[in-house]
Amino acid sequence: MWEITEPDLAPIALGAAVLGTGGGGNPYLGRLRVLQVMRTGGQVRVIEPDEIADDDLLVAVGGMGSPMVSHEKLAGGDEETVAARALESHLGRKFDAIAPFEMGGSNSMVPMVVAAAMDIPIVNGDGMGRAFPELQMITYLIYGGSPYPAAIADERGSQVVIAEVPDAKWLERIARAATVEMGAHTGLASAVMDGAYCRRSIIPNTLRLASDIGHAVHHAREVKDDPSEAILGVAGGMRYLRGKVTDVHRRNAAGFARGQMTVAGIGDDAGRTIRIDFQNENLAIYEDDEPQVMVPDLITLVTSDTGEPITTELLRFGVRADVLVLPAPDLLRTPEALAVVGPHAFGIDADYIPAV
Amino acid sequence: MWEITEPDLAPIALGAAVLGTGGGGNPYLGRLRVLQVMRTGGQVRVIEPDEIADDDLLVAVGGMGSPMVSHEKLAGGDEETVAARALESHLGRKFDAIAPFEMGGSNSMVPMVVAAAMDIPIVNGDGMGRAFPELQMITYLIYGGSPYPAAIADERGSQVVIAEVPDAKWLERIARAATVEMGAHTGLASAVMDGAYCRRSIIPNTLRLASDIGHAVHHAREVKDDPSEAILGVAGGMRYLRGKVTDVHRRNAAGFARGQMTVAGIGDDAGRTIRIDFQNENLAIYEDDEPQVMVPDLITLVTSDTGEPITTELLRFGVRADVLVLPAPDLLRTPEALAVVGPHAFGIDADYIPAV
Repeated sequence: MWEITEPDLAPIALGAAVLGTGGGGNPYLGRLRVLQVMRTGGQVRVIEPDEIADDDLLVAVGGMGSPMVSHEKLAGGDEETVAARALESHLGRKFDAIAPFEMGGSNSMVPMVVAAAMDIPIVNGDGMGRAFPELQMITYLIYGGSPYPAAIADERGSQVVIAEVPDAKWLERIARAATVEMGAHTGLASAVMDGAYCRRSIIPNTLRLASDIGHAVHHAREVKDDPSEAILGVAGGMRYLRGKVTDVHRRNAAGFARGQMTVAGIGDDAGRTIRIDFQNENLAIYEDDEPQVMVPDLITLVTSDTGEPITTELLRFGVRADVLVLPAPDLLRTPEALAVVGPHAFGIDADYIPAV
Repeated sequence: MWEITEPDLAPIALGAAVLGTGGGGNPYLGRLRVLQVMRTGGQVRVIEPDEIADDDLLVAVGGMGSPMVSHEKLAGGDEETVAARALESHLGRKFDAIAPFEMGGSNSMVPMVVAAAMDIPIVNGDGMGRAFPELQMITYLIYGGSPYPAAIADERGSQVVIAEVPDAKWLERIARAATVEMGAHTGLASAVMDGAYCRRSIIPNTLRLASDIGHAVHHAREVKDDPSEAILGVAGGMRYLRGKVTDVHRRNAAGFARGQMTVAGIGDDAGRTIRIDFQNENLAIYEDDEPQVMVPDLITLVTSDTGEPITTELLRFGVRADVLVLPAPDLLRTPEALAVVGPHAFGIDADYIPAV
């Protein structure tokens, strides 16, 4: 058990945004919410997966919806807690711990807000090891967890419990449709599970990894080292290209920010041009008209000078960025996982070949 | 207490479709569902509002979605029962009786299916005294009933509990969005209420009224009387026009069948042409470019020769129809009700003037 305190938040938010591959919402808004909770006495305690008891009851929480909207709306701030409490009330049982949904900007912070509000710990790990756009793309559901019950809540006081669905894709469809109607952003609680299953399906240690990445970037900035090298030193992987964002097409459709960007190489990479497709998160790098890097590998953009992660909603023409590729966690590389989060699941006509 | 048996169903379905003003779904599909329940031993018992105990727990049930879809899909048949049971489970309490949602084709039959399956009675009355397209347009909600919890279920096994909403319009929006995603037809259970409130807010005796209308039409057919006159003799009101449907514009948008039809007068009415706007249900009659009859007055089309009600999904060019206007129940004419079901609520720029 360890405790996350105020000075830990900035590096964790930064590192989680690196792992977030462009999605997960704005990390700084999420950080403000945690700070608010901490400054009113809330404690964020972290336990390791092996500290979970077999019969503990866990739930994953996160914000649902287009990151463009959550950036604009600065939601009420307790939707995820309301959703988790709605599930407790539906189940007639209290949760013992919060399992983070994904690493990603805002969604790396949300579990801390909920855990502090409910006075229970969060687990050092998450269900994606990165961020993904859809609910069924979470290891807690991929490896046999039940897609129901789940709950969503909005800042106006609406609460919807999805009491039963045939499968995780129907959870995604129904929760997404309700979320769009509720203003395109809701707090979500789903993947109710016991401790024994959580230990098997969680991607471990990602909160610590995010923190280590963040600290490495902060250190590199201080000593004027290359921040991208610092990230790769902690997380592994490679710099695919150093370049400049020359074009961004983005539309907000059906609750997602979908689009593509073009990055033109500079320096050693001058003359190369790549395209990156995204659906909230970066999905694939195309070069010479072929997919070169694909989900579930992590494709993340950071500013070349400061290593600041660039989320898809903040993408804009002219930004100088390093395109990094980090390795996908083992639990995302199995056949079960690739069926849900591999290239074909996103309409990319290629088999997954790990790029790193 | 009385019991509805097989021979009662045809007249009730016919009379309810007359009161349904074009909406409520296809009455014959609903009737088949009740017959199936009756033939497997299910009993449909009816109680009067004054037989409800003050602390009885009641719920309204009905099919939600575009009638065009329910006509095509012939839904699984127990969605509304599943929705009611999901609410029981959410509340931790059993329902004592079913309060019909609306009089309308299919939705006049649905409460019988649910009541027989749950072995509880239905009340002789309903929440609209006709059919309306949206959830908030129900007397159970208009007069102060809580818009939550409510539940919807589909034939694939999805169940969604709307645990809390700011108001009835949000219930409508969220339930409609989820319904559209779930295939445009769901079973709905909502307006949980106690017996004392149900007695105050229910439009009484409409099941009996539907039955009387149906019997009157059947009798008129046998003795070759004018079936429209038979309907007006029981329900009051007037024949606005005898004519032929000359044009129908209809589109299935956002879970509703919206459109307008033109009816050209024949016989004594030759030379007159009217337009009727509908949103699942018929909303207003325009003649000489002015609204002449408006919600909540009941505008219903029946075939001139046999008095068969014509639902909006079965409307087609060339049908010879009597356009009947029946009086709105008193509970729909109050200021509270007109704010929700009057002309302005449907975008009709006119104050309500009763036509009959």
